[in-house]
Amino acid sequence: MFAYMQAVKTRLIHYLEEYFAALGPGFGAVNSWGPDALERLLDYTGGGKMIRGGLVSFTHDMYGGSFPEAAAAAGAAMELFQSAFLIHDDIMDRDETRRGKPALHAGYAALAREARLHDPAHTGEALGICAGDLALFIAFDILSGLRVDGGVKSRLLSRFCRELEYVGLAQMADVYQGASESGLAPENILALYRYKTGRYTFSLPFAAGLILAGRDEALVNQFVLLGEKMGVLFQIKDDELGLWADEKKLGKPVGSDIAENKKTLYREILFNRAGGDAKKKLETIFGKPLPAPGDIAFVLEQMQAHNVRAKAAETSAAFYREAQALIAGLPPGTSPVWMQRLRELLDYNMNRGN
Amino acid sequence: MFAYMQAVKTRLIHYLEEYFAALGPGFGAVNSWGPDALERLLDYTGGGKMIRGGLVSFTHDMYGGSFPEAAAAAGAAMELFQSAFLIHDDIMDRDETRRGKPALHAGYAALAREARLHDPAHTGEALGICAGDLALFIAFDILSGLRVDGGVKSRLLSRFCRELEYVGLAQMADVYQGASESGLAPENILALYRYKTGRYTFSLPFAAGLILAGRDEALVNQFVLLGEKMGVLFQIKDDELGLWADEKKLGKPVGSDIAENKKTLYREILFNRAGGDAKKKLETIFGKPLPAPGDIAFVLEQMQAHNVRAKAAETSAAFYREAQALIAGLPPGTSPVWMQRLRELLDYNMNRGN
Repeated sequence: MFAYMQAVKTRLIHYLEEYFAALGPGFGAVNSWGPDALERLLDYTGGGKMIRGGLVSFTHDMYGGSFPEAAAAAGAAMELFQSAFLIHDDIMDRDETRRGKPALHAGYAALAREARLHDPAHTGEALGICAGDLALFIAFDILSGLRVDGGVKSRLLSRFCRELEYVGLAQMADVYQGASESGLAPENILALYRYKTGRYTFSLPFAAGLILAGRDEALVNQFVLLGEKMGVLFQIKDDELGLWADEKKLGKPVGSDIAENKKTLYREILFNRAGGDAKKKLETIFGKPLPAPGDIAFVLEQMQAHNVRAKAAETSAAFYREAQALIAGLPPGTSPVWMQRLRELLDYNMNRGN
Repeated sequence: MFAYMQAVKTRLIHYLEEYFAALGPGFGAVNSWGPDALERLLDYTGGGKMIRGGLVSFTHDMYGGSFPEAAAAAGAAMELFQSAFLIHDDIMDRDETRRGKPALHAGYAALAREARLHDPAHTGEALGICAGDLALFIAFDILSGLRVDGGVKSRLLSRFCRELEYVGLAQMADVYQGASESGLAPENILALYRYKTGRYTFSLPFAAGLILAGRDEALVNQFVLLGEKMGVLFQIKDDELGLWADEKKLGKPVGSDIAENKKTLYREILFNRAGGDAKKKLETIFGKPLPAPGDIAFVLEQMQAHNVRAKAAETSAAFYREAQALIAGLPPGTSPVWMQRLRELLDYNMNRGN
């Protein structure tokens, strides 16, 4: 699975390089922002693991599709959608770093500072909003130009649009929750993870690959369901890494979820179990813009004292079993090599270290 | 022309109402933000004149197209793109009102304030960014679902994507210029207007209607050029109204372009002509967050003293003549009724009062 995904990543980056090179002259004719933005977007998009983009090729190849180039193109579009969301997200969350580098809007803010512009921080955000929009348009441009049958293209585009709409709504709920003092019941957290991570990160690329391989809605729906389960696992792991990972591997400060008062499953379990003065202290720490190392250590101690990781692991285990059952229920005759890769993907979401 | 555009506007609103009603249940299944956002977007989108959307039907009908429903749908999508840009623009420009009502993000900020959320102004902006993205996705959803030939759809989508990319780049230049102390040469201002207003507001909908009517690229390109000219006229008029219009008709405070230090043609002509203490005073007024009524009066007096309106009118007149020549050069045999409507559209852009 890893070797396959790595090979696809190389193909996606190559595709983006060529596509952006072809866009360059037209963009350059408008003004100098275009070529500059293409460079930033290429660097930014290639800086991730490109799992979402890779998964389009994954199901396409798993089900013997005949359009590997279209799958790579759709995967590249998927990664540009992801870049757009991350760029806009970092502005919403006021995150200044992404994957250990300045966030995209922070890069523009630096440019604005150098050019002695008025209000460089805000100007950086404004340029970041534009760059995110631009990434969305290029992604749709790629999808619109795919060399596949018209019916397949319409089906693919409609699926993308619908799922992107849903992730937009989940993002609104996430913004609201992040700014709210009150907690969120664990079942609501899991519902949010289902749309914000599951359907978007796994179900959508799974579906895209299957549509390009000419597969019917019944199989698409099985994978959509599987994607939801994998996504919840992925997100719970993401939250865990946000608390306990090595900061260098994480690419953002450990504890930034605490500073943002993100309503993660870990936070909710902890708040349900903690009491008295400890809970009061926790309430002052979550949402504090710059929690001190001692604050973060206190949160982690409390998590330990209340067995929060074990409780979250139970939830993960339940989703893992459901995903296993869905994989076992796929139509007979699927290549064993690919079934094995799919199980490895599931295990990765359950156990990944960064 | 006016009666025609008014009739199309009614059709576009009706289309959006039906489309949004169909989206409602799926959105509602995700969370409560979807139905709420659809209501806000419908109200917001219907609050404009819907010129852009109407122009898709305009060229489609002018050239005897057979897909009036697809043209209305593409026009509705065009208006959603416009809403998305305005929503994001108002966040970038920190405009709190739009068409005499609270800007969309300001509505969300009010909601955040009522719900006693953390940092309601920023939360409103974050929700506004999401709502703008959502409008983009719905617009692409509409285009993806058009009931037209696959080749036509691909051509239409590619045209939309390319022009939206370009307007994104023009917007970046606009943001940069707005935050910069230094002025912009009039030819650069006109180049910006060409992309930001011309190609987007006129050329793109013209092209969309022609593509849906099955017309070739040669005719599309004639209209793209005509759209550029009309757009520059439209924008110069927009800047004029921003300085001299009746505030009630304008829907935003007179002088907000001064507060934003927008590099309009009027500003640049004035700064080229003013000198001495007057110029120094002007430099302190442009970009001041809350210019006093006396400040705005001083700017207008200076504009008067330096014949700025007359100079700008010369530029407009030149673009008007070029547009007239392009209209006269359209293929023979075009219906005289439609040729007349096209000339009325040109006159409207030259002379409109709000």
